[in-house]
Amino acid sequence: MRIDTLAVVGVGLIGGSIGLAARRRGAAGRVVGVDGRPEALRRALACGALDEAAPDLRTAAAAADVVMVCTPVDAIAPTILEAAPACRPGTLLTDAGSTKAALLRAVDGKLPAGVAFVGGHPLAGSEKQGSDYSSAEMFEGRPVLLTRTPYTDDNALSRAAGFWEALGARVRVMDPEEHDRAVATTSHLPHLTASALAGVTPPEWLGLTAGGFRDATRVAAGGPELWAGILLSNTEAVLAALGRLDGRLTAFRRALAAGDREALTALLREGKEVRDALIY
Amino acid sequence: MRIDTLAVVGVGLIGGSIGLAARRRGAAGRVVGVDGRPEALRRALACGALDEAAPDLRTAAAAADVVMVCTPVDAIAPTILEAAPACRPGTLLTDAGSTKAALLRAVDGKLPAGVAFVGGHPLAGSEKQGSDYSSAEMFEGRPVLLTRTPYTDDNALSRAAGFWEALGARVRVMDPEEHDRAVATTSHLPHLTASALAGVTPPEWLGLTAGGFRDATRVAAGGPELWAGILLSNTEAVLAALGRLDGRLTAFRRALAAGDREALTALLREGKEVRDALIY
Repeated sequence: MRIDTLAVVGVGLIGGSIGLAARRRGAAGRVVGVDGRPEALRRALACGALDEAAPDLRTAAAAADVVMVCTPVDAIAPTILEAAPACRPGTLLTDAGSTKAALLRAVDGKLPAGVAFVGGHPLAGSEKQGSDYSSAEMFEGRPVLLTRTPYTDDNALSRAAGFWEALGARVRVMDPEEHDRAVATTSHLPHLTASALAGVTPPEWLGLTAGGFRDATRVAAGGPELWAGILLSNTEAVLAALGRLDGRLTAFRRALAAGDREALTALLREGKEVRDALIY
Repeated sequence: MRIDTLAVVGVGLIGGSIGLAARRRGAAGRVVGVDGRPEALRRALACGALDEAAPDLRTAAAAADVVMVCTPVDAIAPTILEAAPACRPGTLLTDAGSTKAALLRAVDGKLPAGVAFVGGHPLAGSEKQGSDYSSAEMFEGRPVLLTRTPYTDDNALSRAAGFWEALGARVRVMDPEEHDRAVATTSHLPHLTASALAGVTPPEWLGLTAGGFRDATRVAAGGPELWAGILLSNTEAVLAALGRLDGRLTAFRRALAAGDREALTALLREGKEVRDALIY
């Protein structure tokens, strides 16, 4: 699939990578960027993620066939609702945010006729921030989760899927609530453990770490404001996931305190079985 | 430093890598391997980690200038105590185990005159097992922690340090108890969170993971029996580290439940500061 004009709103790591991938792969004839931070626009233009910068959201939305919102999660719904009235009929609004249920609740049923929204979440990224770290291959072979709700327009969903597939991604359609429950465990919980591990480590012991610590804590280097927004947009599911993790750590603690080698080995073996089944 | 004969007892990933590195770098004139598993010896010979296999521990110990014990942690003390009487005077006994305090308590004061023990722990490795994954570069630039106790012979400590330096490692001398407290946080705790994260993830959600999950759970693929032994040899320090982690996760949970963005951001920022200070 090829679209004429793609507007990318928020040109950080993900927005920059989408622009770069769309331009390199010819998935869009023209990529227009919008960002409240002039410096971010300048860098995205410099790294080749954009053909041009638009002066404001409405101008970009009016010119776009697809509006891809890549702002921090809190800003996505307001951005969609502000952009929609400026769009031509037939425009697809979509996003790349990490959580979906609150967003869909905020947007579903609030858009003008002829303008459709499909929620999206590429399972790709980095702890780095900014379009300087963008990669045209970021979505190659990666899952992109798209939402379907009673308000979803099937044609818009197909167009969103086609766009991501043109960037090399594998699309999977999910209910937003199910999406948020899954990523609470597969993404938000690892972020919290990474941060907590780093947070309890005295800096003078950093020289006594190896690859296990390095990898287990990598995502703790992600943006604190960005991640606070993500976690707060999925509070209930994250708290439930934290509860399950706590149960598991308590089981470890009991086995250790009791010197129960069999129980400890069984817990470790269960974790290994799940991890060994991971292909990516 | 160059030694004539190095005996490697336990030729898995670490033993294999030590043999390989010592042969490639000329740190030992001859590397002799001992392992109760004939298949492990065959693989270590095949991958070039050994010059020859010894029929048993005592034969290897009698021929060695340095005996490097790379068995699972539980087996290290019995192996040292069994090997020592077979050693010629001047032989250095050392090891590569993940915990040190219990080992030093078991060995200190129990060795024949003329035979010295220095505990060691290279902060290097992998979740993979077996000498097939050995690497001659595994210790290049990596910290190796050596123990000093009231029983430590300074000459033996220098020889152990010289050997590891010949493999490219950076040696640091520590008290065994301090060592165990540090690695409880920097190694054993990340292992437990990796395993717990994997353990609470339904396998059907593995397709909904990205790099964060992959890295945060990598070490969960390590050997369950091996790791049960490591954790049980450091119970007190691991339980203390788990307690600190629990406190941190509880702070996250409270901030989330209260919708306290400021507290959540502050916790994440503290974790980021520590992680950003990690060089390796």
